[in-house]
Formats: sequence, structure tokens, C-alpha cells
Amino acid sequence: MSRRSVQVVDAGVLRGRLERARKAAGGTGLVIAPGSDLRYLLGQAGGSFERLTTLVIPADGAPALVVPKIEAPGFAGVPLAELGVEVLTWVDGENPYAAVAARLGKPDRVAVSDFTPALHVLALRDALPSAEQVLAGPIVRELRMRKDAAEIAELRAAGAAIDRVHARVGEFLRAGRTEAEVGADIAAAIVEEGHEVADFVIVGSGPNGASPHHAVSVRVIEEGDVVVVDIGGPLPSGYNSDSTRTYSVGTPRDADVAATYAVLQEAQQAAVDAVRPGVTAESIDAAARSVITAAGFGELFIHRTGHGIGLDVHEDPYIVSGNELILEPGMAFSVEPGLYQPGRWGARIEDIVIVTETGVEPLNRRPHDLVPLV
Amino acid sequence: MSRRSVQVVDAGVLRGRLERARKAAGGTGLVIAPGSDLRYLLGQAGGSFERLTTLVIPADGAPALVVPKIEAPGFAGVPLAELGVEVLTWVDGENPYAAVAARLGKPDRVAVSDFTPALHVLALRDALPSAEQVLAGPIVRELRMRKDAAEIAELRAAGAAIDRVHARVGEFLRAGRTEAEVGADIAAAIVEEGHEVADFVIVGSGPNGASPHHAVSVRVIEEGDVVVVDIGGPLPSGYNSDSTRTYSVGTPRDADVAATYAVLQEAQQAAVDAVRPGVTAESIDAAARSVITAAGFGELFIHRTGHGIGLDVHEDPYIVSGNELILEPGMAFSVEPGLYQPGRWGARIEDIVIVTETGVEPLNRRPHDLVPLV
Repeated sequence: MSRRSVQVVDAGVLRGRLERARKAAGGTGLVIAPGSDLRYLLGQAGGSFERLTTLVIPADGAPALVVPKIEAPGFAGVPLAELGVEVLTWVDGENPYAAVAARLGKPDRVAVSDFTPALHVLALRDALPSAEQVLAGPIVRELRMRKDAAEIAELRAAGAAIDRVHARVGEFLRAGRTEAEVGADIAAAIVEEGHEVADFVIVGSGPNGASPHHAVSVRVIEEGDVVVVDIGGPLPSGYNSDSTRTYSVGTPRDADVAATYAVLQEAQQAAVDAVRPGVTAESIDAAARSVITAAGFGELFIHRTGHGIGLDVHEDPYIVSGNELILEPGMAFSVEPGLYQPGRWGARIEDIVIVTETGVEPLNRRPHDLVPLV
Repeated sequence: MSRRSVQVVDAGVLRGRLERARKAAGGTGLVIAPGSDLRYLLGQAGGSFERLTTLVIPADGAPALVVPKIEAPGFAGVPLAELGVEVLTWVDGENPYAAVAARLGKPDRVAVSDFTPALHVLALRDALPSAEQVLAGPIVRELRMRKDAAEIAELRAAGAAIDRVHARVGEFLRAGRTEAEVGADIAAAIVEEGHEVADFVIVGSGPNGASPHHAVSVRVIEEGDVVVVDIGGPLPSGYNSDSTRTYSVGTPRDADVAATYAVLQEAQQAAVDAVRPGVTAESIDAAARSVITAAGFGELFIHRTGHGIGLDVHEDPYIVSGNELILEPGMAFSVEPGLYQPGRWGARIEDIVIVTETGVEPLNRRPHDLVPLV
């Protein structure tokens, strides 16, 4: 299976995270499956096979890594002994859920990480029938949402790396090429500029730009197209970039582009400017949406304004109506309103921002104007 | 996010699968998350975001695809109307679990697909508190495990494609290069030979070959190394290849390689030869293991003999002690015993095979000998 490189995180940092996780769980046992939560807590994401690998953090006693014997070497770079994490290996034919249950004791509640496969969720339910199952996400996200200085440095580096790619899009994007051809060149540039992998490349030209999660297609880019380019990926540390700019191949064929884009640009800036400690996540969404609604384009803005970012491209905090979370220094998220004219064109502007002690630090610095390409 | 190409599956085939799934569920509602089960049933795997996308197959009434509005265009290539699948879109702020519950009615049991994230499993439990949750895997695998003619043709093509890559390994693998360099060349060849992506590339040289799930490393390959090369990926249809051969760079430095490898080769062939309809999955594991145990190497064979393959690289049937499943024509799986000398070297031979009406059809045709490279 494909594996990413392991970049060792300082044992002291990891020990602090494990202790904070246990404390935040408040007596609930934590069961953390492979993925970003595991990477946050152990510095290693683990595999994602059908065999159970999981970090067990009981309310009392030492944490344990339950791992198939053949997967255990994948954790060789993790300072498990120094972290006080016991390793419990198992082989095919054994029941690893019983090992998890034994380590947890008799908890009233067990929190499983949000992306634990149902396969393991239900087997664990059967192994601990008296424990209520809840999600670990709300516990772990309280930690992960507040980035420390090293995490912010990584997100800054990721922002600069993807800015360098946007600065090169003009080399690749021109009339007569397919979205897929342009996307392949951008993907190579994403890696060249320091990402471990090009996790996503959206090149939405003309009508395809009106579908926010369109990736690439065989559509040939034409003179007059407006093109949404939404790209990103993880650095070797696991921290992600994600930035969108909208390009214009020659003069836009649709007469409404300039005026509509001006509203989008104003809305995005208003949302960035609204970011500071003490305001709610939904207020940032409202800052963008109110500009767009006032201009009469409310129906064209069909998604939330943003999502948190870190070891996952999408994580808390979500910048969406109804999220009353109070922003705090160290939170990182995208601000990315978009306007979509079905069948014709779309536009989106996306920056990652960090909440600072006094306001906001945008991590993407490329100009916000519609980028003209000849 | 990264998306794979959609290859449209015939609507008649999909309709048959949907009906068989409903029938196999026997009154239990099915809730199928993005992934291979969804691709099997709709011809499209869907995304895998934090937003709920799911195919709901109630015991009575029409199936429904519950999907975020912005993800709906991703299903444009699926003949949903022709399949009688209603589309229920939702936007941020709405509760999609209520829509799933309403579509299911008041079932006693709901089966969720095996890799549904806990996030959705527990939200669905709360939306349908009176329904017992079980796994959909045992239901859907009854269908997916028995490949139809078109699926077998795809697996044959995948086997031939990865055989062409193994035929080229000698171009890449030599002393003085790192495993990672060799792996990158092999990954490119995997794509050149018709795969959509190189899903996994294991180049386990010398002591790294003794760790069955080692991927690649910066270790420089040396004269005398035995090297395990385990590679594969999906064709554009989604059907996977997976084949292992073991290479020798010059003369093996360890004197025990030849005799040990001979046992492995005999064991692998014994297991392939044991495949036919009517025998159990575990009997194939036993066929390999008994040869190895009789030769005194039982302790070195630390994993099961094989796994099913299809739209997933690992799926049912598993060829493992305790699996009393009776093999039937159309079942596809790997036969891949391995012997591992910790700290020194490892070896594995892996073919994908199909159970035929009368016996077995191996899909990988490269020779089984230790492959000498100069």
C-alpha cells in the first residue's frame, strides 16, 4: 500500500498532546484509528487496512498501540517507549477488539475517532456492550484546532509553496489544452514546489467552473474561458496547503464576469478582514455572504465560506452558518466564497488564514484579482 | 480532492446488482457510503469527505442517493433515473441523516457499509435509535465475491498489465540504487502499462524484505540482496492488480536462500493447485502452510496466504485459517505465501487466481523462480 514519509515529531510535543487528549476526554476512553488524529498524537498516521490498528488511551493507565504484527514496523520511527505507549501486536485469527476492551477497563463511554471504519466501530461495540459509543472528533479537535507555533510555521510554509505554484499557472494554462493536461502540469509543479504529493487539482474551465468540486476533464480550454484553479497538498510534515485563484483566458466571453467577480472579491476581503479572536466562525461566513446577498447574487453562493486546515485539508473549524464557535489565536481555516453561474462559468477566491492575537494573518499572498492570461 | 475517472458500467448490470443487494439484505435497510461498495452498485465510488454521501436501499420502495448538492455533479455519469434511484441533495446546515432515516422507514435493522466513517455511523444510530446497526459488508460481499464475466475480464487485463511491469523490473532494479529510486521507476511503469495509478509499490531489499508491508526506503540496494517486489494498482475500470516476485541481485549473500526459496515455491504452487470449487478458503492456506511447516519453516510464514481482489485490493474471500467459506467459480484472490528471515532477507511469491468451473485460472504468468538480475 502507499505510505507517506514519516517526519518525526518531537517526543515532548507528542507527550503533551497525549496528556491533553486524555484530560480533554474527561474519563472517556479514547480509541484512535489510523489517520490524521493518530498522526497528531503519535507523529505517524498508520495504515488503513481492514486489520485493526488503533491507539487506545484509557482514562487510567498507560496508552497502548494495538497493531497487527506485520504493521508494527511502520511505527519504528515513533518514540513509543519514551511516550509510555505499550505496543500490543496481534496476528490474523486473534481478536484485537478484546485487547482494546481489556485496556480500556469498564468505561461508561468510549470515544472512537471520526473516521474509524464501521467495521471496527461495530466490533468494538460488541466487545464493550455496556459502553456508550461517542465520537472522539469533538475531543481531539479541541486540541488540533489550536495550532502551536511549529504547526503554524508548517502552514505558512505550505501557503508559500502553493503560492509559488499559482505564480506558475500561466506557464501551463492556455487555450487549446485540456483541463487534464493543465492539471498534470500543475500537479508536477505542486510536488516541485515542496509538497509531498498533489492531493487535489481542480481546473474548472468555462461551465465546469460552475461545479465547485469538479476536478479536471478532457474539456479543451477556449479563449474567453474563466477558469477556477483550486489546488493543494501536504508538505512532508503532513500539513496542507489549499488555495484557489480564478484565471481568465483572454477576455471573458460572458459580459457579466467583471461585475460579478468584483462582488466576489469584495466579499472575500470582507470575510478575511472580519477574522479576529472573539468572533464566531459563522460571523465570517456572514461577512462574505452579506456582501454577496446585498449585490443580489445570494443564490449563486452555494457552499459554506471555509473549512479548517492542518493535518487534514478539511477539519475544524468550519466557517458556516450555525457554527457559533468563538475564534481563538492559532486557529487556521480557508476563506473561499465562490459564485457559480450554472452552465457558463464560476469563480472562487481562497486563502488560508490564521487567527492571531490581534487579528488575522493570511497565508496566501497572491493577488485576488481575476488573473488575466494571454 | 483527487478523483478518479468514471468508467460507466452498463445500466442493466447495475440494476441487477441493486436488486440482488436488496434481496440479499432480506428486509434489512442498506446504507452504502462512498467507496468500492458504492462503485460496485452505482458504477461510481463517490467522494469521501466529511459530508454524508450515501446510497440508501430500503427493503421496500425506491433506492435513493443522499448527496451534498455540490457533490451531485460527480454522479452525472451514473444512469440514476434508468436505475430508479432518486437523488436527494442537501446543503450545509441541513440534517442528511433524517433524510436517510425517512427513506428507510422504521427498519428493525440497518446495515452500513464496512468503511462508513464512525462520524456517520453514530449520527445514523441517533437518527434511527430503534434500529440495530449491522455491517453491510457480509451482504454486499456475497455479491462482490462472485465476479461476473466482465469483472473477470478486467482482472485478467489487470494481471497481464502487472506481468508486463514485472517483466521490466530488471531495467530498474540494480545494485547502487535506492529502493525509492527503483520504486519510482516501477510506479511510472505501472501507469505506462495501463493502470490508472500505482497504488502500492513495495521494494523490500535485504533486511527490509523481511518486513512484509515495508514500502520503499532510502536503503541502497547491494550486490547479494534478495529483493521482494510487490506491486499493483487499479485499471481505469477500478479492478486491481497485485503481484509479487522476488529478485536476486547477483548471487544471494545468505547461504540459506536457495533451499528456503525452493520450499516457498513448492508451497505457493501447492496452494494454487489446491484451488477448485467446493473446497474451503482455509484449505488453500493449509495447502501452503503444510509444505512450509513440514520443511521446518512454519515460524517464518507470519501472515495469511491471501486475500480476495476486485474493486478493492483487499476484499473477500480471505485465504486464512478459520475461513470455512466454500470456494465457488468466479471468486478471485491472491495466493502469496512468504518466508521472512528477520534482519536478513525475505521472499514472497504472489499470483492472483480465479476459481473456474473445474479448477483454477492463474492471472499472473511470470515464472515463479527467484529472478536473477545481473
